[in-house]
This record gives sequence, C-alpha cells and structure tokens, in this order.
Amino acid sequence: MAEQGGFVPIRRLTVFGVGLIGGSLTLALKAAGAVVEVTGVGRSLSSLKLAREHGLIDRMTDNAAEALEGAEVVMLAMPVGQMDSVMRAIAPHLRPGMLVTDAGSTKQDVVSLMRQHLGAHLRDCVPGHPVAGAELSGPLAARADLYQRRNVVLTPLAESDPAGVQRIAAMWRQCGAQVRSMTAAEHDAIFAAVSHLPHLLAYALVDMIAARDNAGQLFDFAASGFRDFTRIAGSSPEMWRDIALANREALLAELDAYLAQVGQLRAALQRGDGAALEATFAQARSARQDWLDRLR
Amino acid sequence: MAEQGGFVPIRRLTVFGVGLIGGSLTLALKAAGAVVEVTGVGRSLSSLKLAREHGLIDRMTDNAAEALEGAEVVMLAMPVGQMDSVMRAIAPHLRPGMLVTDAGSTKQDVVSLMRQHLGAHLRDCVPGHPVAGAELSGPLAARADLYQRRNVVLTPLAESDPAGVQRIAAMWRQCGAQVRSMTAAEHDAIFAAVSHLPHLLAYALVDMIAARDNAGQLFDFAASGFRDFTRIAGSSPEMWRDIALANREALLAELDAYLAQVGQLRAALQRGDGAALEATFAQARSARQDWLDRLR
Repeated sequence: MAEQGGFVPIRRLTVFGVGLIGGSLTLALKAAGAVVEVTGVGRSLSSLKLAREHGLIDRMTDNAAEALEGAEVVMLAMPVGQMDSVMRAIAPHLRPGMLVTDAGSTKQDVVSLMRQHLGAHLRDCVPGHPVAGAELSGPLAARADLYQRRNVVLTPLAESDPAGVQRIAAMWRQCGAQVRSMTAAEHDAIFAAVSHLPHLLAYALVDMIAARDNAGQLFDFAASGFRDFTRIAGSSPEMWRDIALANREALLAELDAYLAQVGQLRAALQRGDGAALEATFAQARSARQDWLDRLR
Repeated sequence: MAEQGGFVPIRRLTVFGVGLIGGSLTLALKAAGAVVEVTGVGRSLSSLKLAREHGLIDRMTDNAAEALEGAEVVMLAMPVGQMDSVMRAIAPHLRPGMLVTDAGSTKQDVVSLMRQHLGAHLRDCVPGHPVAGAELSGPLAARADLYQRRNVVLTPLAESDPAGVQRIAAMWRQCGAQVRSMTAAEHDAIFAAVSHLPHLLAYALVDMIAARDNAGQLFDFAASGFRDFTRIAGSSPEMWRDIALANREALLAELDAYLAQVGQLRAALQRGDGAALEATFAQARSARQDWLDRLR
C-alpha cells in the first residue's frame, strides 16, 4: 500500500473513545495537517473536556447523531466491550461514503458486529488494529508520535470499497505507521500467539505468586527479569478480559500448543537432559536475537 | 546484618571467573578502597588480559596453587558448571581462615559440592548469590555500580564461622548491596518461582514461535510486550541449562504449580467466564503494582 500523491486532509473526523489510542491518532493527524476538525465522543464528560483542553479534539458530544453530522471518517477507539452498543447507536446516522474504522485488538469479533449492526454500510467499513503499546491510558497519555514506525493492520471485508481502504491506510501513514493488510482470521491467529498468549501467561505467573503465603518474600527477591516478564500483567484487566473472550478459539489453540511445548521442556528437565534444555534455550535465544537484529 | 564499624580492606582477593559478576565485584571493591590486591583466574587468557588492562584485576594466573597464595577471600564467579572442577583444584591449597564464597545462581548444588570437595574447610565457606541482571557478559560488561541497591543472598552452612559470614556480608555491603541470609533450600525455592520458572517459560514461548512455518510473520507483528516478556530468553543457554538442572526439583514443583494455575485460566476461558478472567487479571495487576510501589 504505497502512498499515492499528497494526502487530502480529512474534513471531519469523529472519534469514539478519546484515550491513548484515539487521542494519539488525532494528535498525529493534527501535527501532520491531515485533519481539519475532530469531534470526540465518550462516556466521560470530564475526560472529553480534558481532551479538548489539550487540543486532542475540537468539539465534543455524547450524542451519536450530532457526532456523525458531516463526518468523513468515524474511528471507533473505545474498549472492545463497548463496540456492540456504539455500533448500534451510530447505525441509523451513517451516510454512504462515511468511512467507519476501528482500533480494536481483535478483529473477527469486530467484523461480526459490523455485519450484525452495520449491514447496510459494509462498503464503507474498514476494520483495523494499530499495534501500539498501551501501558498508560486516557487522554493525557496520548502522544503525536505513538504510531511512528508501528504496524497498523487493516482487515478489509470482501465488501469494503478499495478506495475507502486506501483512504484509511493513507490516514495511518500520515501518523508515521506502516500499514499491513490481511484477513481478520489471520490477524487474530497471529496476535493470539505473539500478544494474547503472553498476556495470559504473565497474569498467571503474578497471580500464582501473589496467592502464596510467602508472597511478600517472593516479590522481595524478584529482579529485573521478573519485572520485564510481567510488565504486560500491568495491562487493563477489563481490556484483556474482552480480548481473551473475543479471540477465545485462537487463544485456546495457542495456549494448548504452548502447554505442549512446556510439557516437552518439563520432560527434558525431569530426565535431566541438559543437551535438550540447552538446545531449546539456544534456539530461542538465537531466534530472538535474529528478530531484534531485523528490527534495527 | 548491620555494618559494624569501618571495613578493613581485603588484603588479597582471588576471583575465579572475571566476567560481569566477578569483574563488577572487583571494580566495586576497588572503587570503595575495600581491596588491596586482586588475582584473576580463568580459562581464557585473552579474557584475563582484558580484565587486567581494564583494571578489574592486578595479577592473573591459570594455576590454582599460585592463585591462592596469600588470598584472604576466594570468590568463585565462574559458570556453575565449572564449580566441581574448580573446587577440586583449589581444595589442596586452601589454608585455615581463607574464606571461600561464590556467586552461583543456585545454592543447594554449591553447598553439596563444598561438602564433597572442601569438607575440611567448611568453617570458612560462605555460599552466596548476588541477584544482579546478566544480559551482557564478559569482563567488558563489568560495572562498579552493578550491585548498588541489589540483593545479595548468603546461605551460610551450619559449619560456617559467623565471623567469616560477617566478613563476606560486609564485603558485599561495600559494593552497595543489601545482604540477606537464608538456608540454601529456601533460596532455591524462592528463585525457582521468581527467576528460574520465568526463564523457562520465556524460552518455551520464543521456541514455539520460532518453530512455526510462519515464524517470520509472527515475529513481524510482535511488539514491545513480547519483547519485554521474552527478554530473559536472551540469556546464556549454557548458564540456564546448569541452573535448571541444579535446581531441578524446585523448578519442577514450580512448573507444576504454574501449569495448574494456567489450567484454571484455560478452563475459565473455555467456558467464557469473563468475571473469572477479569478477577485473575485484576489481582495480578494489583499485586504487581503494590510490588513496584514498594520498590520505589
């Protein structure tokens, strides 16, 4: 998806959920001169006011009809758990050519909700996932450079108008992102392995240790390796509940594959097979090093 | 173990293995004026020369008898896999009052080797474990501040002379470390949970992904959460093979406890129990946050 010519600024962008993800998008687009006016929509009035004070949005509302008036692009950037109710609310107010995209971490569930609620509007739907860290949250965490050199995955529908997909891809490139395209099922399988599974594993380890009688002593001796391994267990429980449930089948499959892998390591350890342990550890280190080298 | 009065500098310190761990100790002691002369011993002549050029050691040798001549403290800081042969080599040359300590990541195995090879000398043995990160290795990675505010765990033997234990504890405090004392079995159980298990889990995840047909694509979409979760899978395969084998029983027990914990999460996911998932995630996040708050 190479950029074709100059980017015509988005006349009006409506963002549902002006937190880290939505707010960083609007800041990046404003910094690039790629948007004329931004309307913010959300459940929390104080959060929207903060977003307006900090220049993330120009207008605010909690009314779907008002929010969509004259919108060229509608970004759904609230927690995935609110996708259903927000789509229901916007459906009657969508007009042909009004592009609807989202920033959800799982895609098959979003596609299924689009088919359920926005059936008459699928031509203008472009499901997406900006792959950017989210340890902090809320409008004050938003940064214009959050998407620089980050991946944004678009998972267009069979019905999606290619011109609309190109428009959303170009919007993300204005934020410095690399845009990739695949099916929603491919997306969910990939992220089950490299994101959703590690989150589950990190939560499980911290929870196991926290439940011990000597938890205080255990944490006392945990060092930087433990801190980094469990960093993702600091993520939002609500958000990760939604992601786990939304991508349940793929996550269960990855979890079972992982349990089989750990089972092999356990067997090697049990029989004192140092060569097998070292071979596994060495393969892992080398694969990880190759990956880091490619990132540079 | 509070410091009693001023620290009398160590007249001669002999360090087997002048890498990150041993070299950082000598740099820290030299910076504190807490050592007069350091002899480095190792398998690699080029590595020892490098250590001498950079002021980590004053003298070097590959001969055990020569190395121990006049030594007040003998630090075993080479990989745990060499513990057996080094102890065998030094045993004939130890003199009463010559303190022998180590920096191994596991303690029951070191204690057992001390009992096997240094039986006549247990009064002067003080097993220890400086808990400091080791992503880099070798003499050039050594830093005088590596042990600042880090834990050093000593696991004295029943036979250890309390004065010798105090001397080694005081030596570590000269490096800025906090010294803690416990049995070797307690030590190994704690580190199985907060260090050895996470290493095994991280290696297993990277290895699983690296073995996939679409490994390149999976790594392409791995983000910072994956990078941090798997950082410890960049550790030395040889070292972690030795640690896993040395602490096999405790590690197997922690692995089984973890598999049971993950099994519960898997069951909650399977039945779509969002409340159970969220409760587990929230407990983990809150326990981790409390831990980080205490660290500050």
